Amino acid sequence: MKRRIALISTGGTIEKTYDELSGVLANHVSVLDVMLASLELRGVEVQRVQLMNKDSLDMTPEDHTLIAQTAGEMARTMAGVIVVHGTDRLAVSGHRVVELVGTPASPIVFTGAMRPYELRSTDALQNLTEALLAVQLVAPGVYVAMHNQVLQFPGVTKDKLLGTFVKVPA
Amino acid sequence: MKRRIALISTGGTIEKTYDELSGVLANHVSVLDVMLASLELRGVEVQRVQLMNKDSLDMTPEDHTLIAQTAGEMARTMAGVIVVHGTDRLAVSGHRVVELVGTPASPIVFTGAMRPYELRSTDALQNLTEALLAVQLVAPGVYVAMHNQVLQFPGVTKDKLLGTFVKVPA
Amino acid sequence: MKRRIALISTGGTIEKTYDELSGVLANHVSVLDVMLASLELRGVEVQRVQLMNKDSLDMTPEDHTLIAQTAGEMARTMAGVIVVHGTDRLAVSGHRVVELVGTPASPIVFTGAMRPYELRSTDALQNLTEALLAVQLVAPGVYVAMHNQVLQFPGVTKDKLLGTFVKVPA
Amino acid sequence: MKRRIALISTGGTIEKTYDELSGVLANHVSVLDVMLASLELRGVEVQRVQLMNKDSLDMTPEDHTLIAQTAGEMARTMAGVIVVHGTDRLAVSGHRVVELVGTPASPIVFTGAMRPYELRSTDALQNLTEALLAVQLVAPGVYVAMHNQVLQFPGVTKDKLLGTFVKVPA
Repeated sequence: MKRRIALISTGGTIEKTYDELSGVLANHVSVLDVMLASLELRGVEVQRVQLMNKDSLDMTPEDHTLIAQTAGEMARTMAGVIVVHGTDRLAVSGHRVVELVGTPASPIVFTGAMRPYELRSTDALQNLTEALLAVQLVAPGVYVAMHNQVLQFPGVTKDKLLGTFVKVPA
Repeated sequence: MKRRIALISTGGTIEKTYDELSGVLANHVSVLDVMLASLELRGVEVQRVQLMNKDSLDMTPEDHTLIAQTAGEMARTMAGVIVVHGTDRLAVSGHRVVELVGTPASPIVFTGAMRPYELRSTDALQNLTEALLAVQLVAPGVYVAMHNQVLQFPGVTKDKLLGTFVKVPA
Repeated sequence: MKRRIALISTGGTIEKTYDELSGVLANHVSVLDVMLASLELRGVEVQRVQLMNKDSLDMTPEDHTLIAQTAGEMARTMAGVIVVHGTDRLAVSGHRVVELVGTPASPIVFTGAMRPYELRSTDALQNLTEALLAVQLVAPGVYVAMHNQVLQFPGVTKDKLLGTFVKVPA
Repeated sequence: MKRRIALISTGGTIEKTYDELSGVLANHVSVLDVMLASLELRGVEVQRVQLMNKDSLDMTPEDHTLIAQTAGEMARTMAGVIVVHGTDRLAVSGHRVVELVGTPASPIVFTGAMRPYELRSTDALQNLTEALLAVQLVAPGVYVAMHNQVLQFPGVTKDKLLGTFVKVPA
């Protein structure tokens, strides 16, 4: 039995890319759909929610609140929620979930990418793969899954120098 | 702080492949090393153990025992163990660990691939990514991580028709 | 002004492959279409002719004759013809064109692949790229374009050991 | 018998890219070497000449002259010359060859890329493949091979809107 999870997309580097080939062949398929189609998903059944399509640097406080509310709401009916988010403000949305929802009814896992899918050296597929597994394994809470790590909010921040997320000592 | 894990390679489809390009450029680099180099590993520090290089259909009972003993032994000193294994007899080795070791000191996660890395449609990178994350998230025990699922031994078998692993009802 | 050329497909390794990803996303698109879409074609306008879909080892004398006649016929109205063909019997069809047509009205360029497109190390894209350029540059005649070479019939044979085509000394 | 050709690299988009994977595995291998290694070259034997490594927008008149002189010089001893060049000023170097050398002793074929090799949708491999074939098929002269076209200097210019090279009506 597959767990039903929601995958909320908000934009960011992971989606910003444009694959010319798939563009020609399958015009209305997004990069996220291309990535999902390339994975073998036996554990989860994904319901896509295209909430917005923004570079996270352009997100307003209202955007972060909308993302947090939507994720919290969907966590009540689904076995888990993944939020695909630009990395620059990912932590703002993550903390907003904690503020507004506390501990959600099921795991909410944020993910994103430092290098778009369009690049051969992209980390997008690794991160999406990890989020799709982590959402099945962790306890209810708010997390970021990226770069072979799962970190729990609060206390998570982007380390620009390292180009990844780190846990801030309390 | 990265967790130190052992990655025991035994052969199988995931390694059988030969990437001509990397062959030319980096002669003595195995496919597993190419895959590891393509991932961003912030959670684990991998220690490679090249135990054997066999199609799992050719494994003898002694091979399965050697794999089980080595994995159990390494689980005592490392934060986790990954075993890369041909899928046909992967479950035999998995059950042997349970027989010989019971609950290991740290998680032992088997993985493999149905389609070699050499194929564009390979599942090798997905499965390795999942094993490298699962080994950090699950409780001590013996598992297979593949195709967006983590299944715990005993009671795991390969479903040839589905081309994946399934849990057998007890 | 682009030259109008015919691209006759007959099957073989170059088409045998199945790209799972594009299969999911764009069900009725063939591998040849995927390859054509990935190239930037400013010199030629391609008219696709799906003549048959056979491993060339299964071709009958009638098949070779049909291929030769079709290629010769299309060379009269088009600026060039490309024939995608299994490599094992490619030279049989090539020589049949010379027998039946002599020097065609425009260049007829055969091509194929030793390793399917589905493999990362495929030669399919290189060979198709070369055929699509050679057809614009060579004089009317019958050729095979593969592996950075253009060889003219008659006197061309597959060297199984080298895995490519060679010119037989007269 | 393979023809000996020179491949003069000068920089530009085709080389600007950085493939993280090959970077890790084969530190001192350039992108051009990665591309050459991925092709099956039965027609030519390539001698690499790393002349400079510049974005062509930064080239001085002396740079264009040096490129033209080197290409013309090498055309005297080799069966052909390929010049890998940034597209923005490629035509300047091409015309400089015509000015300084007139008709070279063997074909000089310029090529480049609009989208770096690092992108999945790169045109670099197509263009390099075409240059490596064209250099064997065209008469002595100065050309650009890109995007399924071979255009002869003088009278070639980059069409920025189309993102390719075109022939200017005389």
